[in-house]
Parts: sequence; structure tokens; C-alpha cells
Amino acid sequence: MRLLVLGGGQLALMMCWEASRLPIDFVVYDPDSSAPAFRCGRRAVDPFAAVEEADVVTFEFENVDVEVARYAERLGKLKPPLGYLLVKKSRLEERAFFDSLKIPTVPWRRARGWEEAVRIAEGMGRAVVKIPAGGYDGKGQFIYPREAAGFRGYGGDLLVEEYVDIRREFSLVAVRGEDGDVYFYPPAENFYVDGILVWNYAPTKAPEEAYEYVHRLVERWRYVGTVAVEFFEARDGRILVNEIAPRVHNTGHWTLETDASQFENHLRAVFGMRIRRPRLPPAVAMVNILGLSFERLPLGELEALGRVYWYFKAEARPRRKMGHVNIVAGSVEEAAAKARRVLSLIYGREFPKLVMRPRGG
Amino acid sequence: MRLLVLGGGQLALMMCWEASRLPIDFVVYDPDSSAPAFRCGRRAVDPFAAVEEADVVTFEFENVDVEVARYAERLGKLKPPLGYLLVKKSRLEERAFFDSLKIPTVPWRRARGWEEAVRIAEGMGRAVVKIPAGGYDGKGQFIYPREAAGFRGYGGDLLVEEYVDIRREFSLVAVRGEDGDVYFYPPAENFYVDGILVWNYAPTKAPEEAYEYVHRLVERWRYVGTVAVEFFEARDGRILVNEIAPRVHNTGHWTLETDASQFENHLRAVFGMRIRRPRLPPAVAMVNILGLSFERLPLGELEALGRVYWYFKAEARPRRKMGHVNIVAGSVEEAAAKARRVLSLIYGREFPKLVMRPRGG
Ligand SMILES: Nc1ncnc2c1ncn2[C@@H]1O[C@H](COP(=O)(O)OP(=O)(O)O)[C@@H](O)[C@H]1O
Ligand SMILES: Nc1ncnc2c1ncn2[C@@H]1O[C@H](COP(=O)(O)OP(=O)(O)O)[C@@H](O)[C@H]1O
Ligand SMILES: [Mg+2]
Ligand SMILES: [Mg+2]
Repeated sequence: MRLLVLGGGQLALMMCWEASRLPIDFVVYDPDSSAPAFRCGRRAVDPFAAVEEADVVTFEFENVDVEVARYAERLGKLKPPLGYLLVKKSRLEERAFFDSLKIPTVPWRRARGWEEAVRIAEGMGRAVVKIPAGGYDGKGQFIYPREAAGFRGYGGDLLVEEYVDIRREFSLVAVRGEDGDVYFYPPAENFYVDGILVWNYAPTKAPEEAYEYVHRLVERWRYVGTVAVEFFEARDGRILVNEIAPRVHNTGHWTLETDASQFENHLRAVFGMRIRRPRLPPAVAMVNILGLSFERLPLGELEALGRVYWYFKAEARPRRKMGHVNIVAGSVEEAAAKARRVLSLIYGREFPKLVMRPRGG
Repeated sequence: MRLLVLGGGQLALMMCWEASRLPIDFVVYDPDSSAPAFRCGRRAVDPFAAVEEADVVTFEFENVDVEVARYAERLGKLKPPLGYLLVKKSRLEERAFFDSLKIPTVPWRRARGWEEAVRIAEGMGRAVVKIPAGGYDGKGQFIYPREAAGFRGYGGDLLVEEYVDIRREFSLVAVRGEDGDVYFYPPAENFYVDGILVWNYAPTKAPEEAYEYVHRLVERWRYVGTVAVEFFEARDGRILVNEIAPRVHNTGHWTLETDASQFENHLRAVFGMRIRRPRLPPAVAMVNILGLSFERLPLGELEALGRVYWYFKAEARPRRKMGHVNIVAGSVEEAAAKARRVLSLIYGREFPKLVMRPRGG
């Protein structure tokens, strides 16, 4: 059994960790020769040849070469299907996709160039202006009017959306098998600083309609694998879909503490095996390690509170996801309390400085 | 943090899997260039240089080059201490070690050459004659009188011991930290066919004195790391220590289904971290995959019952440990029932032929 993963970041690395015990030939394609997943998987040099040689092709992030994915789809090897990747090539496409499925999302408009974006944003009062392609972890997003300088001069289409007064953010991580079986991991409540996920905990409550939206999304093109959907619960009560991630997701890293993680179930799904229901601990939390090199990591203390997962990135840059800590606890209160201790162990007085940097870069 | 593991078999491989998430440079020395652990760890070529460059040196089996281990001990890097390795160089030494600690073991005698062995065995009635060094999985052992031909002509010292009428076999896998903290995993009942472990389950009951013997063994030279002790419960009620394995152990593979496996706790111990108490499932079982290549593995069916761990050995030879299946269940009865299904999935009608081969080879 040979799997080709497009993209070699930490998501591919963790997938590879979970694949290690199985007789799977795990192949990774990433143009960056220092990609973390090469630590575990075998490196492919020619992506098209690798697609030909693989039994199954999947991806770990959205910004992969569409032509390679398209080739894999043509050979019947791409899981999840190409449609989900294509809508993620542009935030505008993604919003149109939600609209087409009648899934409520943040009120949005397409702007042709920065000047129109300013006009639309002005009309909304407070808005977020997003560059449609290539962004992640809050990159390419600008709060209007405060960060209006960030997109000044941008000539292409822009996504302009209402700035939502958010009560809480949560996500649903689910996995769908080839047989149509859908399993939802318990919902997680997610805490972002400046557009980047800093920590989360599970389980939290999610309203019925949130599950319904995910079902609608995965049934559209018969999704196969792990998927995540991010939600806003607005202060006025609206449940809004923020984005779909057609892949394993940072808000599901805590599932590594079960016997059927999002990574393992993704593998099971794309290889046509049945989804496994995990045994769940009472509560979990996850804390991202951002911008820190491992010499600065208080490893022993962190391991006393949880489990450290280190991504072995070549260089520690500000805001970069370098690793995370998973915490298991008897209650969500205990999980959150431990997460706070982990946050202060990692960031000390420097938190939130280490995390909060001007975004949009 | 750099760890050197002497020996690159499946035990080193699984240790490496468990180390993967941590910022540990995992180095393996094994003269066999096809050793499984090279799939995960970095290969050392010169063992003495590797000892110098490592922060900590440990071993995954007993038949490592003593001079390398001695050098690591001299540099203060060897964990567990050398004494435990030295007694394992010879089954005769090991028995003398048990005697010196007043730990009851199978009644035994040293024979100088095969003819004396025959005389002593004759006097015992039924006996087992064991070549002192280099044996594992029942290799180098001969039941007297049935297998007397196997050691005929052997000139060196032999271990001759009573053939025990065994009611059950169990083992204790424990881990001792540098701070002296000792944690015992729940005891496992182990099922051997022809000297080789075929499957086991946990938890089972172990008498108080068994724990006491392990304490005595690990305190002798202040053990650090994971250790296993195998016991016989004789039909006449005697609790006898069979052997000590100063390393991670096949009867503890089920601990991979917890959040603090024997492999992870071994790493924690040798790096001076605190031992982690695992959250335990109600019951587990483990089935060894012996002598099978993975093309013949009913992977999907096995994964529906448990988790397959594959060791990626270069070649499938009879009796060779190729992988194992871990099973989690709500009760030991359920675990055992699932283990039986896994056994028949793996071995079918060929069981027990695949497993039962003349030993002593
Ligand atoms: N319209 C908005 N109103 C308020 N906050 C927002 C809005 N859009 C994004 N955010 C904040 O920024 C975070 C990241 O935005 P998102 O669109 O998910 O970008 P990314 O693709 O980089 O994850 C969100 O989780 C949320 O905290
Ligand atoms: N004296 C004995 N009496 C009865 N069975 C024995 C005796 N010695 C070994 N065996 C059987 O053989 C198995 C392997 O023996 P052991 O000495 O542990 O060898 P190894 O080092 O190869 O594991 C034991 O677990 C037990 O089932
Ligand atoms: Mg997002
Ligand atoms: Mg033994």
C-alpha cells in the first residue's frame, strides 16, 4: 500500500507518525527540501511520477499544485475529491460554495481591487478584508479600518466581510469513510489570538445545525477522509460557518490522545478501511507552541502536564507553529486550568507578545 | 538530547516510534544494516564514537557488544546499569543472581558439557537443558529426554533445570525512574507455544511476592528504565522467577494502547524525567504475528478487531516476530475472545503449524 501526501508540513508529519505502525509506504511530496514530514516519510522528487506509483493520493494543505491533484483525480486516486481542493483555492469560491449549499456564513461581498474593498468595508462599518488565495493562520487578512494600510494598492479581487462580534469559536472535526459512514469527534472550543489558533479544549457543545452543515458539505462530492469546519457563534446568536478545511486540522490535534486520531482515521478512510470510533478521555486541551526553538522549551515541565509534539521545523520564526502540547484531564475546567499553566510555561511574560504580531504579512 | 540505542530490532523501532514526537535525536547501532529500527532512527556506524556523542545510551536486547556497553557505563551514560546486562550474558549467571537475592527460581544445576547435562537431567526425571548464552524465543533450549539430541556433543557449560509443570505464566513489566519511583503495569498472562510468546492478555492477578521480587531486582543496582520479569506459577503452587529482561519486553507491547507505554516510560526514565502513570483500558490482549509476510496479512480484518503493529523485517522466516496486534476490550473475557479471532485470522488452519517448529535451532 503506497500513499502519496501532497505537502510535507506538520500535518503530513503527524499523519506519518500514525502510519508508522502499518505496512504503508508513506511518500511525501513537497518542493521545500526541509519540510518536516521528510523526517518520517520517503521523499518524492517528481510529483507526477509519484502520483502514478501511489495507490492513494491525499493532501495536507490547500495550497498544493492543482495540476498534480488533478492528475491524481484523473487516475481515480485522489481522496478527498478534487472539488474540495478547488473551492479552497480562493476564499471567494469557498464563500460561493457555502451560499450554494445554503449554509450561513459571514455576510460577504466580492471587491474588485482595494478601492472598491474600502468602499464596501466603509458601508459595513467594521469589516475584515481578506486576500482570497494563499492565506493561513490569519495571514492576508486585514481588519478595517485599523489595518486598511495592509491591502492598499492590491489590484486583484478581495473578499470583504462583516467583522463579526464573536461570542465563541468552535470547530467540528469529522471523518467520512468510503462507505458513507460519518463520525464526528467531540466539538472543540478554539481560542485565536490575532488570527492564529493558540489553544483549544474539548468537548464543548455545538448546535444541531452545525452538524447538519457538515453533513451537507461532505455529501456534496462524497468526501473521504478527515475534514474540519470552523464556526463562529456571534454574540447575536447566529451560527456562521467560517471555513472548511478539507484535511486534518490543528483544532483536532488533541485526538492524538485517543486510539483513533484524526490522522489515523484519515488514513483508514482514504485506504477504504472502516472508520474507528475512539475511546475518549473525559476532557482534553491543546496548546500551540508558536515561534519557539526547542532549546527554549521547558520539556520536562511540559511533559509533567501533558504530551509535547514537536514538528522539527528548520527554523523558529515568529507565529510559526513549532509544536503543540496535548493535555488530558478529568473535566474541561481542569483541562483549561492545565492549558493556562502550559501557556505560561511556554510563553511566560512574553505572552502574548510572542504570539501577537502584526498580521497580514 | 541524543539517545543511542544498542540493537535495532523491533523493540528499538517501537521505542523510536514513541520518541518521534519529542525533540530527541534517536540514534541506533546495529551491525545488521537491515535492522528494523533504521526505518525510524538515525544509523550509527562506529558504536564507540556514537557512545561519545550520545547523552544517554540504552539497549533493546541482551546480546549487544559488552565492550560498547562498558564504555557507555564508564562515561556514565548507560541506563539501565551494566550489571543487569552482564548477568544476562549467561543464563547461569542470571540464575546465580536470583539465588544471591534469595529469589525462588526453577531448581537448576550447572553441567560441564553435554554428558554431565544428561546425567543431571536423568536425575531430575524431566528437565530442560539450556545453552547459557545467545538464546531467545525458545532457541537453545531442549526438553529432556525428548529433545536430548539437540545438545548432544555440546562441550561448554549448560544450564540444566527442572521441567516445571506450569499452571500459568505471567509477567510483570515495571519502570523505575532515576528518583527511585517504581510503577508496575498491570500483570499479563502469557501464552507460549514451543518456547515462543504467541499471545497474552492483561490484567491478570499476580501474588504480592512477585512484586517484591521485582523490587529486589531493580534495587540491587538501582535500575533505570523499563524492565520485565517472567514468572511461572507451578501446578504445585510455587511462584518461580523464570527470567529478567532488562529492557522493554514483548509481554508489554499492549501498553502501546495507553498514553504511557513501556517504550515511552523507558525514554522518560533514561532521560531523567518522571514516570507517567497511564490511563488504562479495562482489558487488553496482544497477538504476535509470527513468520508471516505482510502480503499474507488480512490487514483490514485485523484492524477491525485491533491495531496492527508491523516491524518491517527484511524477510519472513518461520517463528520470526514480524509484528503484533493489540486489542482493547471491556473485559478480559472479551479480550481473549477477540485474541482467538485474531489468531485464527492470522494463522487459519496453519495454526499451530506456523508457530510450532522444532526449537533449539
Ligand atoms: N469576519 C471576521 N470577524 C471576526 N473575526 C474574524 C473574521 N474572520 C476571521 N476572524 C478571526 O481570524 C481567525 C482566522 O480567520 P480565518 O478566516 O479562519 O483565516 P485562516 O484561514 O488564516 O485560518 C478566525 O478564527 C477569527 O478568530
Ligand atoms: N524449566 C521449564 N519448565 C517448563 N517450561 C519451560 C521451562 N523453561 C522454559 N520453559 C518454557 O519456554 C519458554 C521460554 O523459556 P525462557 O527460558 O524464557 O527462554 P527465552 O529466553 O527464549 O524466552 C518459557 O516461557 C516456558 O513456556
Ligand atoms: Mg481558520
Ligand atoms: Mg522468556
